[in-house]
Amino acid sequence: MLRSEPEKRSDGRLNARAHLIRLADPLPLQSGAVLPEVQIACQSYGHLNEARDNAVLVLHGLTSDQHAAGASSGPAGKPGWWDVAIGPGKAIDTDRYFVIVPNVLGGACGTTSPASRNPSTGRPYGLRFPVITLADMARAHAVLLDALGIAKLHATIGGCLGGFQVLEMLASCPARTGKSVIISATARTSAHNTALWAVLRAALMSDPNWRGGDYYDGPSPSDGLGLLAMTGALFWMSRETLENKFGVAPMSGVPRYTMEPDFAVEQFLNSVKGNASKGRLDANSLIYLTRAIDYFDLARDAGTLEQALKGVQDPVLLVSYASDWRYPVEEMDRIAQALPTGVLHRHLTLDSAMGHGAFLYEFESLSPALSEFLR
Amino acid sequence: MLRSEPEKRSDGRLNARAHLIRLADPLPLQSGAVLPEVQIACQSYGHLNEARDNAVLVLHGLTSDQHAAGASSGPAGKPGWWDVAIGPGKAIDTDRYFVIVPNVLGGACGTTSPASRNPSTGRPYGLRFPVITLADMARAHAVLLDALGIAKLHATIGGCLGGFQVLEMLASCPARTGKSVIISATARTSAHNTALWAVLRAALMSDPNWRGGDYYDGPSPSDGLGLLAMTGALFWMSRETLENKFGVAPMSGVPRYTMEPDFAVEQFLNSVKGNASKGRLDANSLIYLTRAIDYFDLARDAGTLEQALKGVQDPVLLVSYASDWRYPVEEMDRIAQALPTGVLHRHLTLDSAMGHGAFLYEFESLSPALSEFLR
Repeated sequence: MLRSEPEKRSDGRLNARAHLIRLADPLPLQSGAVLPEVQIACQSYGHLNEARDNAVLVLHGLTSDQHAAGASSGPAGKPGWWDVAIGPGKAIDTDRYFVIVPNVLGGACGTTSPASRNPSTGRPYGLRFPVITLADMARAHAVLLDALGIAKLHATIGGCLGGFQVLEMLASCPARTGKSVIISATARTSAHNTALWAVLRAALMSDPNWRGGDYYDGPSPSDGLGLLAMTGALFWMSRETLENKFGVAPMSGVPRYTMEPDFAVEQFLNSVKGNASKGRLDANSLIYLTRAIDYFDLARDAGTLEQALKGVQDPVLLVSYASDWRYPVEEMDRIAQALPTGVLHRHLTLDSAMGHGAFLYEFESLSPALSEFLR
Repeated sequence: MLRSEPEKRSDGRLNARAHLIRLADPLPLQSGAVLPEVQIACQSYGHLNEARDNAVLVLHGLTSDQHAAGASSGPAGKPGWWDVAIGPGKAIDTDRYFVIVPNVLGGACGTTSPASRNPSTGRPYGLRFPVITLADMARAHAVLLDALGIAKLHATIGGCLGGFQVLEMLASCPARTGKSVIISATARTSAHNTALWAVLRAALMSDPNWRGGDYYDGPSPSDGLGLLAMTGALFWMSRETLENKFGVAPMSGVPRYTMEPDFAVEQFLNSVKGNASKGRLDANSLIYLTRAIDYFDLARDAGTLEQALKGVQDPVLLVSYASDWRYPVEEMDRIAQALPTGVLHRHLTLDSAMGHGAFLYEFESLSPALSEFLR
């Protein structure tokens, strides 16, 4: 069942619409478990053409959602998370393409997640939600495309968690993806990233308000979210970027010898912490999405990465950032090497002090190549 | 006032002795504050010769204490933290040298710290303890040497936090240090390390049992200590070391799709967390020692590093590890360049997968060079 309606806050030319799909059947998961009642929330921008062949699927990262475009559609009336990229005349041109941005399975912004009602108890799942995987997310996207009546996409685009999903779609339904763009991603999760997610989950769970995941009828574990974001901030930027951005001198020029913030980097971390504490992220959703990333290894089921990607038939654009130390250029090269002959359009490596977040915060360096690739 | 007594658990040849010095006068601090009642706890090993010129000062790191040598003098009856290095016939040979290992100012293992009684309230200081610095620690070491009647050391040795203290002594009392050995250290704290300490302190403080630092009459903030250690473990080893050590495959070969540990790196982090929760570390002590590191910048007061180190007159051995990404080889080179002409014995760069902890866990690669340098 598909319900679609115009987004109230949207400007007309963007044609932002909200869609909610309730699946007729339970969704089988890679683990063997089954999700009995599944719904998928998504936003669309632009217009689907008559041939139904101008759709572009954009897949969001760990802390984003379906509100990718629009000047005030993000949290607290801010622009959508990729408003620099999606809109009339922009690289992902909504005058030309019908852009679909689903909230990922487990994402807790309308799509079924640990925050959803568990039909067998009538209360939110919490930690009774089954472990989901990147393959499950890709399956949910295929179901969404069926519901929207789109047999083949013009393009599929994603960064980080979104990039892993593009890779899973290239493995499971390569005939549907169209051109694909994979940004700041790797084909499997490193031990270092698994360790990071374990630490971030422990930070969340340290908040007494988290209450074993059953916090929905009480206060939010906002301190845990703050600590998670503060810890994570140490990893989005490289050591060198932190050095160059914040320096080592005390903010006032001379040391005050205090436990209060006395260095610019401390003030930055405090603001990250405060913003996350007040933010809209769902703690259990982060726990399940990071756990899905832990299990991501595209070669595990297929045997080799080459075997997993053997069905890819349309051009692939790979984008990595030289300063992204957790998703290094060499691992993106590994994907380039594993693709079937002839499908690699280009592996574009960009410089940016922003590291892993560069595709969000310094889009101008990526924009021309992306725009050209999509045409 | 100096009180010395033989260590009960020591074997005779090591001649381990415990010393406690109560300072006659208040200790003025770099911040301008004054510590009214100060005591310094230290261990010694070996015998001071008649000329009183065979003393070697060994300065411990962030999570160690004065119990450096002895087969069962560490926590839970384990060997002292540098028992591989200190003892009869070892690199720091107690048949030859009188080895002194003080508990650092703020270290809470007998030396005055936030866990000590605040004379003005009669209760533990907690966060009412003044902020201390590396220069204050160096000053406390000088007072200790006075109390022990040692005008000039044969050598001064330290790694990490201990290395910073050696550098401060080279700046404040270069005529007393003798030969110096600085391991895995830099001459100032990077923005990245300041950020890390801020995150680790926030992890500690997230524990409700921490109670604003006033936990001494209640349960220990053991969960906060566990979270701190788990987070810190992500930084002691490099990304590459974690990859090589733990790999990415699930422990049982196939994924179990569970929130329980399914990867070796998760099991490792859980054991780190569990050990720290049960351990003897004092939360407030870690808060003050890391804060002291934040303020460490040897060049700040002197103007330049060259100026700070201009009084160095005895040979200096610098040791860095190629995989120690937080205290990189290049920053140790910066120290080498700033030393007065002729005093640099050698900048030894070693390979070790252990990164920052290598001088503790892979001492054999350092042992011959250290032994030779001390003779």
